[in-house]
Amino acid sequence: MPNKVVTFGEIMMRLTPPNYLRIVQAESFDVTYGGGEANVAVSLANYGEEAYFVTKVPDNPVGQAAINHLRRYGVRTDYVLKGGERLGIYFNEIGASQRASLVVYDRSYSSISQAKPEEFDWEKILDGAKWFHFTGITPALGDNLAQACLDAVKTAKRLGVTVSCDLNYRKKLWTIEKAREVMTKLMEYVDIAIGNEEDAEKVFGIKAESTDITKGVLSEEGYKEVAKKLYDTFSLKGVAITLRESFSASDNGWSGLYYDGNEIYRSRRYEVHIVDRVGGGDSFAGGLIYALLNGYSSKEAVEFAAAASCLKHSIVGDFNHVTLSEVINLMKGDASGRVQR
Amino acid sequence: MPNKVVTFGEIMMRLTPPNYLRIVQAESFDVTYGGGEANVAVSLANYGEEAYFVTKVPDNPVGQAAINHLRRYGVRTDYVLKGGERLGIYFNEIGASQRASLVVYDRSYSSISQAKPEEFDWEKILDGAKWFHFTGITPALGDNLAQACLDAVKTAKRLGVTVSCDLNYRKKLWTIEKAREVMTKLMEYVDIAIGNEEDAEKVFGIKAESTDITKGVLSEEGYKEVAKKLYDTFSLKGVAITLRESFSASDNGWSGLYYDGNEIYRSRRYEVHIVDRVGGGDSFAGGLIYALLNGYSSKEAVEFAAAASCLKHSIVGDFNHVTLSEVINLMKGDASGRVQR
Amino acid sequence: MPNKVVTFGEIMMRLTPPNYLRIVQAESFDVTYGGGEANVAVSLANYGEEAYFVTKVPDNPVGQAAINHLRRYGVRTDYVLKGGERLGIYFNEIGASQRASLVVYDRSYSSISQAKPEEFDWEKILDGAKWFHFTGITPALGDNLAQACLDAVKTAKRLGVTVSCDLNYRKKLWTIEKAREVMTKLMEYVDIAIGNEEDAEKVFGIKAESTDITKGVLSEEGYKEVAKKLYDTFSLKGVAITLRESFSASDNGWSGLYYDGNEIYRSRRYEVHIVDRVGGGDSFAGGLIYALLNGYSSKEAVEFAAAASCLKHSIVGDFNHVTLSEVINLMKGDASGRVQR
Amino acid sequence: MPNKVVTFGEIMMRLTPPNYLRIVQAESFDVTYGGGEANVAVSLANYGEEAYFVTKVPDNPVGQAAINHLRRYGVRTDYVLKGGERLGIYFNEIGASQRASLVVYDRSYSSISQAKPEEFDWEKILDGAKWFHFTGITPALGDNLAQACLDAVKTAKRLGVTVSCDLNYRKKLWTIEKAREVMTKLMEYVDIAIGNEEDAEKVFGIKAESTDITKGVLSEEGYKEVAKKLYDTFSLKGVAITLRESFSASDNGWSGLYYDGNEIYRSRRYEVHIVDRVGGGDSFAGGLIYALLNGYSSKEAVEFAAAASCLKHSIVGDFNHVTLSEVINLMKGDASGRVQR
Amino acid sequence: MPNKVVTFGEIMMRLTPPNYLRIVQAESFDVTYGGGEANVAVSLANYGEEAYFVTKVPDNPVGQAAINHLRRYGVRTDYVLKGGERLGIYFNEIGASQRASLVVYDRSYSSISQAKPEEFDWEKILDGAKWFHFTGITPALGDNLAQACLDAVKTAKRLGVTVSCDLNYRKKLWTIEKAREVMTKLMEYVDIAIGNEEDAEKVFGIKAESTDITKGVLSEEGYKEVAKKLYDTFSLKGVAITLRESFSASDNGWSGLYYDGNEIYRSRRYEVHIVDRVGGGDSFAGGLIYALLNGYSSKEAVEFAAAASCLKHSIVGDFNHVTLSEVINLMKGDASGRVQR
Amino acid sequence: MPNKVVTFGEIMMRLTPPNYLRIVQAESFDVTYGGGEANVAVSLANYGEEAYFVTKVPDNPVGQAAINHLRRYGVRTDYVLKGGERLGIYFNEIGASQRASLVVYDRSYSSISQAKPEEFDWEKILDGAKWFHFTGITPALGDNLAQACLDAVKTAKRLGVTVSCDLNYRKKLWTIEKAREVMTKLMEYVDIAIGNEEDAEKVFGIKAESTDITKGVLSEEGYKEVAKKLYDTFSLKGVAITLRESFSASDNGWSGLYYDGNEIYRSRRYEVHIVDRVGGGDSFAGGLIYALLNGYSSKEAVEFAAAASCLKHSIVGDFNHVTLSEVINLMKGDASGRVQR
Repeated sequence: MPNKVVTFGEIMMRLTPPNYLRIVQAESFDVTYGGGEANVAVSLANYGEEAYFVTKVPDNPVGQAAINHLRRYGVRTDYVLKGGERLGIYFNEIGASQRASLVVYDRSYSSISQAKPEEFDWEKILDGAKWFHFTGITPALGDNLAQACLDAVKTAKRLGVTVSCDLNYRKKLWTIEKAREVMTKLMEYVDIAIGNEEDAEKVFGIKAESTDITKGVLSEEGYKEVAKKLYDTFSLKGVAITLRESFSASDNGWSGLYYDGNEIYRSRRYEVHIVDRVGGGDSFAGGLIYALLNGYSSKEAVEFAAAASCLKHSIVGDFNHVTLSEVINLMKGDASGRVQR
Repeated sequence: MPNKVVTFGEIMMRLTPPNYLRIVQAESFDVTYGGGEANVAVSLANYGEEAYFVTKVPDNPVGQAAINHLRRYGVRTDYVLKGGERLGIYFNEIGASQRASLVVYDRSYSSISQAKPEEFDWEKILDGAKWFHFTGITPALGDNLAQACLDAVKTAKRLGVTVSCDLNYRKKLWTIEKAREVMTKLMEYVDIAIGNEEDAEKVFGIKAESTDITKGVLSEEGYKEVAKKLYDTFSLKGVAITLRESFSASDNGWSGLYYDGNEIYRSRRYEVHIVDRVGGGDSFAGGLIYALLNGYSSKEAVEFAAAASCLKHSIVGDFNHVTLSEVINLMKGDASGRVQR
Repeated sequence: MPNKVVTFGEIMMRLTPPNYLRIVQAESFDVTYGGGEANVAVSLANYGEEAYFVTKVPDNPVGQAAINHLRRYGVRTDYVLKGGERLGIYFNEIGASQRASLVVYDRSYSSISQAKPEEFDWEKILDGAKWFHFTGITPALGDNLAQACLDAVKTAKRLGVTVSCDLNYRKKLWTIEKAREVMTKLMEYVDIAIGNEEDAEKVFGIKAESTDITKGVLSEEGYKEVAKKLYDTFSLKGVAITLRESFSASDNGWSGLYYDGNEIYRSRRYEVHIVDRVGGGDSFAGGLIYALLNGYSSKEAVEFAAAASCLKHSIVGDFNHVTLSEVINLMKGDASGRVQR
Repeated sequence: MPNKVVTFGEIMMRLTPPNYLRIVQAESFDVTYGGGEANVAVSLANYGEEAYFVTKVPDNPVGQAAINHLRRYGVRTDYVLKGGERLGIYFNEIGASQRASLVVYDRSYSSISQAKPEEFDWEKILDGAKWFHFTGITPALGDNLAQACLDAVKTAKRLGVTVSCDLNYRKKLWTIEKAREVMTKLMEYVDIAIGNEEDAEKVFGIKAESTDITKGVLSEEGYKEVAKKLYDTFSLKGVAITLRESFSASDNGWSGLYYDGNEIYRSRRYEVHIVDRVGGGDSFAGGLIYALLNGYSSKEAVEFAAAASCLKHSIVGDFNHVTLSEVINLMKGDASGRVQR
Repeated sequence: MPNKVVTFGEIMMRLTPPNYLRIVQAESFDVTYGGGEANVAVSLANYGEEAYFVTKVPDNPVGQAAINHLRRYGVRTDYVLKGGERLGIYFNEIGASQRASLVVYDRSYSSISQAKPEEFDWEKILDGAKWFHFTGITPALGDNLAQACLDAVKTAKRLGVTVSCDLNYRKKLWTIEKAREVMTKLMEYVDIAIGNEEDAEKVFGIKAESTDITKGVLSEEGYKEVAKKLYDTFSLKGVAITLRESFSASDNGWSGLYYDGNEIYRSRRYEVHIVDRVGGGDSFAGGLIYALLNGYSSKEAVEFAAAASCLKHSIVGDFNHVTLSEVINLMKGDASGRVQR
Repeated sequence: MPNKVVTFGEIMMRLTPPNYLRIVQAESFDVTYGGGEANVAVSLANYGEEAYFVTKVPDNPVGQAAINHLRRYGVRTDYVLKGGERLGIYFNEIGASQRASLVVYDRSYSSISQAKPEEFDWEKILDGAKWFHFTGITPALGDNLAQACLDAVKTAKRLGVTVSCDLNYRKKLWTIEKAREVMTKLMEYVDIAIGNEEDAEKVFGIKAESTDITKGVLSEEGYKEVAKKLYDTFSLKGVAITLRESFSASDNGWSGLYYDGNEIYRSRRYEVHIVDRVGGGDSFAGGLIYALLNGYSSKEAVEFAAAASCLKHSIVGDFNHVTLSEVINLMKGDASGRVQR
C-alpha cells in the first residue's frame, strides 16, 4: 500500500550539451527536466510510493513537456497548476577531470516563481498525505513562495504530515540574511532536515571546523557537530548530512550521516566514477524519506539513502532511475558492478 | 570593397526538436541562433559585405554562444554589448503537411529588451556605414528599444546612411495601437520599407482587397495597391512586399514585388518544398539590401531578393547560408536542382 | 469532466531506422511504442478524456518502458498486468516515394498474447466507463484473447458501455476463415464499427465494386455500399470507413466517411505529405470516439476524425500528438500550415 | 547459380552533412562509401550475383572501412589491392527544392588513381566471369588507369566476357578531347553502352536536338537518335539511356530507354520524390546488367533497370539497397507505396 | 595461408541505449549484433584466419542485417541457414561505477534455437577446417542444439579438427543439472576448455577455495586448482581461465591463465577502464585459439589472449575490433595508450 | 588592450568517430578543425588577445568551413589565403584504457602544403604584432613552407616580434636529418622554444637519461638537462617542456617546466582523466605565450600554461575552449571539479 508523499517546488527544463561539449561548442542540447523537489518525487515513485509533485508551469507545449516527463516516471501531477509566463531553464555542462560541471540558470520569471500563495489548496493537496518535502530553493524563489511554503508546512503540521526540508542554499537566489530569516521561520514546522556543511553554515551560521570543501578534505567530526547543532536548534526529529569529497569532476567520494537524536550513523563511503552528479543530494533525500516512511532503522535509513544516491551518480539526468531492488542490492554490499544477466 | 552595413535587434537561441518531432516528444533540441535583424546581417556577410549586428547579450556562455554563431558566419560583433539577465529563447517545431510550424517564444526579460537607449553609441556604430536596417520587432521589445531605434535612425539620417525597415508585426509583443504610434514615428526616417500585406494592414491600417491568407489566395493587385500607399504615406524611396502562398506547411508559393516610385516589379514565382521557412522574409530583406547597395536595377533587385529567399526555404536554421553565386545562378534561371559536381 | 474510456490490446516496441534508412543499413533504431488500441487511448488522453489501456507486459525494464511511454502521454495504466515472457516488437522502415514502408513483426509469444482471459477483471476495469474500444488485432492474437475480448464486450454491454471495434485485419495473425468466425461472434456486442474496404471484404466478405487499392483509385459509391452492408448485417449504431488513396509512400489522399443509419457523411479530403503514416487509422478511430462521446453530429464527427488523422500523418511514431484545438482548427478549415507564433 | 560479374573503378568515402545541412553548418558527417562501379557491384550482389569489385585502397583503417562496407553488402573484395596514399573522398550536400545537391570532390592522389596497370592480373580476375563493367570515370583518373581499363576490356574480349560501360563524363577529371580519345579506343571492346544525352554529346559529340537539361524538358526523339548513333558508331549490342527530368532537387521525372539494334524500348516514367539521388544512374546500370545476364527481354530489361533505379532515389547513400523482389514488384506495377506488413 | 575455423551458435541483435542511459530512458538504441561464438569468429577473421560462423537466422531484413554485420567484419557466412521465426534480441544497459551493466534477454523462439540437428551438414561445414569452437550457450538453447553440438564435435573429432569449448554457463537457459548432463557428454570431444571459476563450479561442481566474486577478490591458487581438475577430469589438451576482478562497472582487473598439462601460465594483469565489457571472455577465447593455431608457446598464447581481451574492454559492441599488430604491441608491453600517429 | 599575435601553419579537418568507435565501425564522424598553430591561436583568442592565424585553404565549402570554425572562436582570418587543391584531413580515433588513440593523416597535397613562400606578405601580416608562433610541423610540410617560415621569422626578428616555436617532430612528414637541418636554421630566430624530450632528441640530438616514454616514467632531472641544453645551443630566452606520463589512454600525469636562463620552474602535476588529449601541447604553448605576453613571472607562466593544458584534456576537439578565469581558478588551486552554479 503506497504512501502519499507530496513535494513542492520548481521543475526546470535542463539543457545539456552532449558528450562533454561546452555550451559554446554545442549544436544540440539533450533535454531533460528536473529540480530539487521533483527529483525527490521521482525517487519515491520509483520505490513504489504515490508521489505528487506540486508546481506551476506555463500552459504551452514546454510546460506540458515538463508534466509529461514527470508522468512518465510515475509522478502524479494532479496538483500542477498551469499558467504564467515561462518554464525555468538551466544549462548544464558536464565537467570532467579538473574541469567543473557548470550550471547557467535562466530561471527568473518562471511560472512557479510568480505564483500566488493562494493558488495552492494545501488542505486538498495534503489530504491523506504521509510526508511533505521541500527544499531551501522553493522559498528562495520569492516572498510569495516563502509564504506558500509556510502555508504548506503549517497545514502539514496540522494534518499530522511529516515535513522534511533539504536546506539547499542557492547564493544566486537570495542573500544569506534573507535565507536565514525565512528558513528559520520555516524550520519551526520541519521534522527532518537534510543538508551539507555549507548549507548549515550559510543559512544558519552553524559550522564545523577544519573542512575545506575545495580540497576534498572532510572532517567527520565537524559534520557530526553540525548535525547535532541543527537538531537541537530546531527541535528536529532527525538530521541528515551528505558528505561529498570532490577529488575531481570525474571522481568523488560519497557518503552520508544521520543523527536521530540518540546516535549518529555514518553510511558506507563510496568512491564514485561520475556520469552525472546533478540530483545527487536529492536522491539521498528521496532515499532517506522512503526508508523512514517504511520503518527502516536509522542505520538502515542512512545506508539506503547513501546507496540510492551513490547509484544516482551513474544515471544521466536529474532523476534517479533506479529500482528498489537495485538500491537494496547495493546497500547490502554488492558494489562490484558485475553484469546482471 | 565591402560596404559597412549595420542591423540592430535581438538574437535568440532557437531550440528545434529534430526530425519533425513535437516539443512534447523531444529528448533533444537542435540549437541555432537567430532573429530578424541578425538573419539579415548574415545574408549580407555571405554576399561579402561588412555586416555588423548590434544587440546586447548576457555575459555568460549562452550569450557567448550567440556571438560565436554570428562570428562563424562572418558577422562583425564589435558593437555587441554584454550584460543583463538572459538571452531570449524560442522553441520552434518544424511543421509538415497540414500541421503548421509552431513557435513558442520565451524572450521576455532578455538582455537586449532591457537595454537602455544610451548604451548604444550610434555615432560610432554608424560611422562609415552605408546602410542601417531594423525590423518592427526591435521597437516592439519596449519603449527603451523604441527610443534606441529612434536614436539610430535619426543618427543614420544625419550621417547619410540609408535606412530600411521590415515592418514585421508581432502581435504577442505589442498592440496594434502601440505599434502604429511607434512605427509611424520611426517611418519618418526610413527609406526602404519591407513587409507583407498583413504587416501593412496591422501596423498602418493600409490594406488590400480580397486576400485571404489562410486560403493561400493572393491578389496581386491588392499587394500593388498596398505598396503604393506605403510609399506615398511615408515618402519612401522603395517598398518591397513578400508574397507567400501557404498551400501547406510543406509546400508554399513564394515571390516578391518591389515598387520604386515609378513602376512595380513582380519577381519570378517559386514553388518551394520547405525544409525550414523561418527567416524567409529576412533573407528577402538581406537580398534586397545587397542588390540596392550594389546598383542592381529595381527589376534585378526584386529578382535577387526573391531568389535568395527562395533558397532560404531549403536551409536549416534562421540564417540563409547561400553564396552570391548560388543566388545569381537561380536568379538567372536554373531552378532544376541538378547536382553540382 | 472527462469520460472514462477503456481500450484493450497489445502494445509493442517499435524500432525504426532513422532518416529513411533501411534495416540492413541501420546502426541505431529510434524506439517508440505503439499498437492499435494503445494509439487510440493516447488520442483520447490528448483530447482530455480519462483513457485506460489494458494489456500485459513483461515485468522487466522493457515492459516498464512501454508503460512509461503510455503514462508520459497521459494514458492511465492502472489495469496493465505484468508478467509473461516478452514485449512484442515491430521493426518499421519509413518508406519514401515508390518504396513502401515496411513492417517486420516480431510479436509472437508476447506477454499479452499469452495472457489468460481470467486475468482481466472486466467488471472492475469497465466500472464507470463510457466507452470500450478494441480492434481486430486483439482477438487475432489467440483464442485466449478472442475469449478475453468476448468477456470484455459482454461485460461492456451489460454495464451499458458503448463498444467500438476497428476491424483491422492482419493476414499474418490469422486466416480469413478464423477471423470471420471470431469477429462475427464479437460484432454482436459492437455498436460502432470502423474499417476500410479491405477489412470488410477480408473479414466478412462484404465488398465494394471497382476499387483497386494498389492504384489509388477509390470508388466512393463502393465504400458507401460497404458501410451500409456492415451496418445492416451487425445491427450497428454507426459505421466509419477510412479512405486512403496511395499515390506513393510520400503522398496520399486521405478522408473518411461515416454512416449513422440515416445518412452517409464524407469528410473533407486531404492531400497529405507523409512523415509517418503508421497509426493513421487509429487516430481516425480516436477522433471519432471523442467526437461521438462529446455529442458531435455525425457530420462533425467524421470531420473531426478526418482532421485528427490527417494531422497524424505529420507526426513521428504511432501516437497522434495533437491537441484538441489543433484538430478543431484544421477541421474548421485552416490547412494552410502557416507558422503559429 | 550466381554469375560472376566484375566491376572496376574507384570507391570513395562519402561525407554527407545530416538533415539537409550545408557543409559550412555541419558538425558531423554521415559516412558511407561509393563510386560508380562499386555501386553497380552492390546492386548485382543484392540481386544474388557473385559480384567482385576491383580497386586499390590504402592499407590503413580508412581503406579497410571501404572494404568492409563492400563486404557488408555482399560484394567480393578478393581482388582489392592495398597500398598507396589515400582513399578518395567526396563531400555531398543533399539539396532540396531549388537548392541543388552539391558534390565537392577530394579524390586526387587516391590509391587507385596512382595504381600501375600491371598491378591488376586481369587473367585471374576475369577467369570464369560473365560480365565486366566500368564507367568513364575510371579511365579519367589517369593514363595508368586508362591503360588498366584497356588491359581489362581486351582480356575480357578474349575470354568472352561481356563488357558494359557507363560513359559518365566528369568534366573535373579530364578534357573533352582527352575523354574522346581514350573512350573511343575503349569502346572498341564494349558491348553495352549506358549514358545520358550529355555524356554522349560531351564524349563523342553525338547529340540530340532541342533538349535543355536545365529546364527539365526532354525530347524523347532526341534520345532515340542518340542511342542509335552510339549503337552504330561503336558496333554495340545495346545502348541504354537514362532520362532525368529535373523539376527541382526534391522532385524528378525518371525513366530509361534501351535500344537493342532492332527496336527502342522506353520504360515506364516515374515521378520520384528524392531522398538521395546519387547513384541513380549506377543503379540503372546494375539493373540492366542483371536483367540482360538473366535473359530478360529488351523491354523487360529496361523496365527492371528503371524500376530498380526509381527505388534508388528513396535510398540513403550511393548503394541501392533493394531486393530482387522489391524491384520486380515495382516493375510489375505497384507504385502505391502502401505499407508492406 | 589462413586456417579454416568454424564456430557454431546464436547471433543476436543487441540493443543498447546510448550514453549510459537506462532502458526506461532510451528513445533510441544503438544496434549491433553478437553472441559468444560469433564474437570468436570475428576475432579470428580480424587476425587473418578464414573464420566461418554457423547459425540460422530468419529470412527477413533483420536476419539479413545480422549476416551483413558478420560479413562486414570478414566472417564467412556460407553455412548460415535462413528460416524460422525470429532473431534473438538482447537489451544491454552499459553500467557505470556501482551500477552494473544489465542484460535483458529476449532470445526465446529464435530461428537457431528451433533449428533441427539435421539441418547442419557437418561433414561439409568442417571439411578442411582446423578448429571448431562452441560455447556452453549453444547446447543450452535446447535438446535439438545439444544434439547438433554433439554431431558437430563428433564429426570434428573424426576429421581431426581441434575442438574448443567456452563453458559459459547461463542460468536463465538451463538448470545446473541439465547443463552438467549435457556438457559432460560434449566434453568427451573437447580439446581445449575455457571458462571461469563460476562456470566450472556451476557446470561440473569443480570449485576453488576462498574466492568471492562479488568482492573482486581472486585466489590465484584456487583458479589453478580448478584448471587442473578440469584438465584431468576431461582428458583435455589445455584449460584456460579468465580472471576478472570487479572493482566496479567502470574498472576491472583482468588477466588469464592457461594450463597445458605441464605448467600453469598466468598472463600479465591489466587494470582496465571499461568502455564495453560484453564479449570480453569471447575475445580471450578468440585470442587463445589464434595463438594455439599459430604455434605460440603456452606462455605466449595466454599473453596474446589476455592482451586481446584487455583491448576488447575499450571497444564498443560485442566484437573485438583490434588488429593482430595491436594485440602483439600490447602483449609486448606497450600499455601506455600514447597516441599512434 | 589586446596584443596582436600571429600563428602560421596548417589547419586540417578532423574526423572523429563518436563514442569511442573505431574507424571501421563508424557510420558518422564528428567534424572539427585543428592544427598545432591554429590551436594556439584559439587559446590566445579565448584569453582576449587579437590572434591571427595564417594559412591557405581551398576556395570551396570545405575550406570555408575551416575558416568559419576559426572565426567562431574569435580567431582573425584576415590573412588566410584561398586556393589550391584541398584541405588536409586527419582521422582520429579516441582511445581508451590500453587502446591508444589513433591518428590517420590524409594531409598530403593540402593547399597550405603547396603554397609558395611569396604568397605570404609577412611585412603586412606581422605589422604591429607582438608575437609570432609556429611549430615544427609547418616547415616539415615542404621546402616551400620551410622557406615561408624562414621569411616569417626573419621579418619578425626585424620588426621586433617575439618568436616562439613548438618543436613538434612528426616522423611521417620528414626525416630526422632533414628536420635537424631545417630547424637548426630556423632556431636562430626563435626566442622561446617549447617541446618534449622526444622532440629535442629527435630534432637536435639533445637527450636526457633514463626516460622511457612508453613506461610513463619521467626523469625530472633529464628534462631539466634538456631544457638547459636547448637554451644554450640556440641562445634562447626561454625553454618550456611538457611532461606527459602515459599510464593509459584514459589517464595521464601532466605537468610542464620552464627554464628562463636563471632557474627551472616545474609546474604543479595534474592527474588527468582524458576526454580528448589532442591539442594538449598546443594549449600549453597558448597558455605560456599568453602568460609571457602579459608579464607573468616564469613561475606563474608555467603554472598558467600547465593549468590551461590540464583543462584541455577535458575538452572535445583540438581547441582549448576555456576562459581566462577558468585557467586562473585552476592555477590558483581549485582542482576539485565542484559544480559551478
